Amino acid sequence: MILTGPEIARERKEGRLVLEPFDKEHIQPNSYNLTLGPTVALYTGEALDTHKANPYTTVTIPENGYVLQPDRIYLGSSVEILGSKHHVPIIRSRSGAARLGLFLHVTADLIDIGSIGQSTFQMHAVQPVRVHAGDRLAQVTFWRVQGEITLYNGKYQGSRGPQPSQIHRDVAEATR
Amino acid sequence: MILTGPEIARERKEGRLVLEPFDKEHIQPNSYNLTLGPTVALYTGEALDTHKANPYTTVTIPENGYVLQPDRIYLGSSVEILGSKHHVPIIRSRSGAARLGLFLHVTADLIDIGSIGQSTFQMHAVQPVRVHAGDRLAQVTFWRVQGEITLYNGKYQGSRGPQPSQIHRDVAEATR
Amino acid sequence: MILTGPEIARERKEGRLVLEPFDKEHIQPNSYNLTLGPTVALYTGEALDTHKANPYTTVTIPENGYVLQPDRIYLGSSVEILGSKHHVPIIRSRSGAARLGLFLHVTADLIDIGSIGQSTFQMHAVQPVRVHAGDRLAQVTFWRVQGEITLYNGKYQGSRGPQPSQIHRDVAEATR
Repeated sequence: MILTGPEIARERKEGRLVLEPFDKEHIQPNSYNLTLGPTVALYTGEALDTHKANPYTTVTIPENGYVLQPDRIYLGSSVEILGSKHHVPIIRSRSGAARLGLFLHVTADLIDIGSIGQSTFQMHAVQPVRVHAGDRLAQVTFWRVQGEITLYNGKYQGSRGPQPSQIHRDVAEATR
Repeated sequence: MILTGPEIARERKEGRLVLEPFDKEHIQPNSYNLTLGPTVALYTGEALDTHKANPYTTVTIPENGYVLQPDRIYLGSSVEILGSKHHVPIIRSRSGAARLGLFLHVTADLIDIGSIGQSTFQMHAVQPVRVHAGDRLAQVTFWRVQGEITLYNGKYQGSRGPQPSQIHRDVAEATR
Repeated sequence: MILTGPEIARERKEGRLVLEPFDKEHIQPNSYNLTLGPTVALYTGEALDTHKANPYTTVTIPENGYVLQPDRIYLGSSVEILGSKHHVPIIRSRSGAARLGLFLHVTADLIDIGSIGQSTFQMHAVQPVRVHAGDRLAQVTFWRVQGEITLYNGKYQGSRGPQPSQIHRDVAEATR
């Protein structure tokens, strides 16, 4: 079951989910709107590899916005710190962003139960699109779980700002 | 909880969800197939901006189909009018369309509870792909909710045909 | 409701879902990690058509990996055979893959209840990315259903390896 907007507000009030800062204008019928933070990360090489650390740089979005180009993956993050030890958050675009051809994730939309932090957006533009810090580009939904809960205790816990991929550490861990 | 196909048919019969026109051949184990309508919208400029109205044009799909190019975002719509005041609809591709590299949404797949209309598809092709009006490209699932329901009352209510982004109105509203 | 990781393990033990081979290290708080199999399929033509059979070829991933290019859709598959007659599986990227700009599906993420097989990944790279057989790129979640269950009995049942699109068969069936 997906929580309704009023239920998201109620559960937050009871301390069962985190959404900070909280603005009741962001409550939607089944979700809560998320805002783009001021920093974007992108890889400095063109070719990437799942088995290597891929160097990256970060950019502060200028006041007049920043144009995302179609041939790059950009990592942004939510202004909001979010998560829950009781429900599973899933993020997605708001339709207004998506209808400009702006992906907010690249099929990794689920946040593990117990992971609390700023959410990393995987941003990809089909056509060049100028975005602005503070744009309400995304939304988060919350889903009830069935079964015993084991809280997330992984490498992205407590994230602040966009977090590049750590997938190459899988290999290091497997061959240790 | 996600409704099974037979449950979608049952809930529709009881007036708790809208799927018009309805064809029982479109019922799948956990979803209902949606059909591509005859009109596609695309932006006339190449560079887009979340803070501006982005001009667009509409195209009627010719009888021999229409080729979607990879460097453009196309907005299509379902033939079907759909929605629910009780369940949350979520749309996605049918696997046959996706396996041709055709995105049916750009991470905005959730329809607010209470929003009833033709659904706008955010279409993006990885390789050029010819589509045809009437293709069963998409499917809709329905999800149970928890909590008090506030019905959608937003800017896309009662949509007919593809609806371009209205995200620039966020700024106008914020500075009013 | 989404099953927690421990609940996925419990339901598997009770024979209510399939995940083979099974490795308890792959259990996540709300999902189970899936591994990329050794074969990738891609279409040999550049322009595709929903009304035609689109010829394809298959490639075995070399030992030092295989670079996915941005202008192609690639079909991979899970090593794992998965499915359930009781719950609905939905697949997605792991965040480490997605943060490299690697899509694991192209908006067809839902697996019909009753469909058991290796899952076809619809892979699309925003930037060139080298992948390796055995990479844990994806994850599967399981969702409870409401309503009478009709098991999947379609054209992709029992899949082994990546399965190209069969959407052109819709037309053949409609005109039969």
